Amino acid sequence: MIEPFDDTYFMKKALNEAEIAFEKGEIPVGAVIVIDNKVIARGHNLTEQLNDVTAHAEMQAITAAANFLGGKYLKGCTLYVTLEPCQMCAGALYWSQISKVVYGARDLERGCINLKTKLHPKTTMEGGVLEEEASSLLKRFFVMKRNLN
Amino acid sequence: MIEPFDDTYFMKKALNEAEIAFEKGEIPVGAVIVIDNKVIARGHNLTEQLNDVTAHAEMQAITAAANFLGGKYLKGCTLYVTLEPCQMCAGALYWSQISKVVYGARDLERGCINLKTKLHPKTTMEGGVLEEEASSLLKRFFVMKRNLN
Repeated sequence: MIEPFDDTYFMKKALNEAEIAFEKGEIPVGAVIVIDNKVIARGHNLTEQLNDVTAHAEMQAITAAANFLGGKYLKGCTLYVTLEPCQMCAGALYWSQISKVVYGARDLERGCINLKTKLHPKTTMEGGVLEEEASSLLKRFFVMKRNLN
Repeated sequence: MIEPFDDTYFMKKALNEAEIAFEKGEIPVGAVIVIDNKVIARGHNLTEQLNDVTAHAEMQAITAAANFLGGKYLKGCTLYVTLEPCQMCAGALYWSQISKVVYGARDLERGCINLKTKLHPKTTMEGGVLEEEASSLLKRFFVMKRNLN
């Protein structure tokens, strides 16, 4: 049987969010949160528009998912995010006790893996899903920004 | 000359916020952000009321301060917070490039010091200001919660 709802399917939804950020002139990172194969929250980076360093895609998705579920813990949920989470977002994921985190591209400098941010023991993390797409969108954004300045 | 605006003065403002959290049944942590001896933002923990793990005192104060300043970087600002920031809040402080962080009580298990969260190179941090007051408010809260359950 073909399973239509796999990691690639949901990462594409996160990439759609990243593209919306791109169009708004934001660093293009997008996220969705999924439970039982349903998207219950979406978010894209809005740090420029909101003038707020905390407005990362993941933070907004975490808040929206908790709002949808009516409880602050995201047990049974999976976060799909186009870029490896930073310390702040990984710290928020720690508190949420989310079951799984799937990211696209690595962030070697500011990502939670190399900075060793602690995740909750109940959380598993994997990466590399649609990595090329996520990474090339980011590269396009920074090339465009450089040419504008 | 007596300096009325010292770390103790502003930490008392943060403790006031923590007491408001206490009265709402929230883990009592409070924060203020100060620039040029003026409080420009306040926040207290609202994770229960908002059903949101990201609603820590510091996160709300960072968002409010950026809103007040009209820019997302908190250069020249000092955060006073009654409890050592967690990974999420320290991660947000990293992005904000805030000049100084002053905390009250240590958080040995979930605080950013032992978990080695990276702060911005422009940020200095010190602790222990009104530590006893901050710590005893937290202890009172957890004793009360235990007795209620």
